[in-house]
Amino acid sequence: MELLKQKIREVGVVISDDIIKLDAILNHAVDPVLTTAMGKEFARLFREQNVTKVLTIESSGIPIAFATAQELNVPMVFARRKKTLNTEHTEMYSERVPSFTKGFVTDIMVSKECLDGNDRILLIDDFIANGDAARGLIRIIRRSGAELIGVGIAVEKSFQAGGRTIRESGVRIESLAKIASLKGGQIEFE
Amino acid sequence: MELLKQKIREVGVVISDDIIKLDAILNHAVDPVLTTAMGKEFARLFREQNVTKVLTIESSGIPIAFATAQELNVPMVFARRKKTLNTEHTEMYSERVPSFTKGFVTDIMVSKECLDGNDRILLIDDFIANGDAARGLIRIIRRSGAELIGVGIAVEKSFQAGGRTIRESGVRIESLAKIASLKGGQIEFE
Repeated sequence: MELLKQKIREVGVVISDDIIKLDAILNHAVDPVLTTAMGKEFARLFREQNVTKVLTIESSGIPIAFATAQELNVPMVFARRKKTLNTEHTEMYSERVPSFTKGFVTDIMVSKECLDGNDRILLIDDFIANGDAARGLIRIIRRSGAELIGVGIAVEKSFQAGGRTIRESGVRIESLAKIASLKGGQIEFE
Repeated sequence: MELLKQKIREVGVVISDDIIKLDAILNHAVDPVLTTAMGKEFARLFREQNVTKVLTIESSGIPIAFATAQELNVPMVFARRKKTLNTEHTEMYSERVPSFTKGFVTDIMVSKECLDGNDRILLIDDFIANGDAARGLIRIIRRSGAELIGVGIAVEKSFQAGGRTIRESGVRIESLAKIASLKGGQIEFE
């Protein structure tokens, strides 16, 4: 998606050979025009798949997943990263995953009330690096009996293994921008 | 807002005299039609105020704030609740606040790059109970030199002091639904 790549070139801050900061458009401030366009693109890519729910994980995936859900006119569910007083009263699917950017392990959780065996789930997230969060969410979807129809990612760091290994397992992943390298502070797209 | 009150009556689960669970529409699953309508309503209420940014706090405020930002065509910024590897490289405004529903203290943070002295900020959140998160965000806005033009809340628990005390300090707060009581498991609107 050319608009996203252009914005990444404009505002991306390369922190290391592994990490790019996109706080200006994805992870802290959000551009509603860009995000709405990303939602429309994911909806276009997956519209034939009869999606019944869009699933993401807090927090940066939420605006993109919401824009996609608006366009497909289906509910959006965001997985939580830990229990709050409000969710202790609900039966939850839970998976423990490491986070590449957070640097620690979190429990991701989805209420059993929010997924059922007839659901056709489109998984949306902002980044895929090692793919741990996506794999955790995929395990949750499968445990619920729902069908995963595909994964939409805004920015895939294709020099890390997440996208490749999940594709090799037979899952369709569509990434709107694929970063092949951040070496030497240079952003190179595939 | 009648549509929101109707949905609260349909899906709200009263957990105690203080807590109502709205996981089905606000805090876990999100209805894009309802949320888009809430965004339009906040945009209508504050459109004359020349808002330059919509500010919220992760996670449940994000869809409503995003829908409002879409309608006003301005950026949305979501405050983070703790540091990640990506944000350690940025100068942040930080305020320590207790969370009513989370049951513990968190640091809320907004990058200095995301707020400037010329901004006119509309603060959006899903709930107001004791108002600690809102007061923390208001302190951050004031420290940045930006102007707070108002606060939009989806659900105000008006039997708790947050909304009242912030209004008494001179801030305009618009709440789309005001819950006067949850006593005995009954949802009573103002």
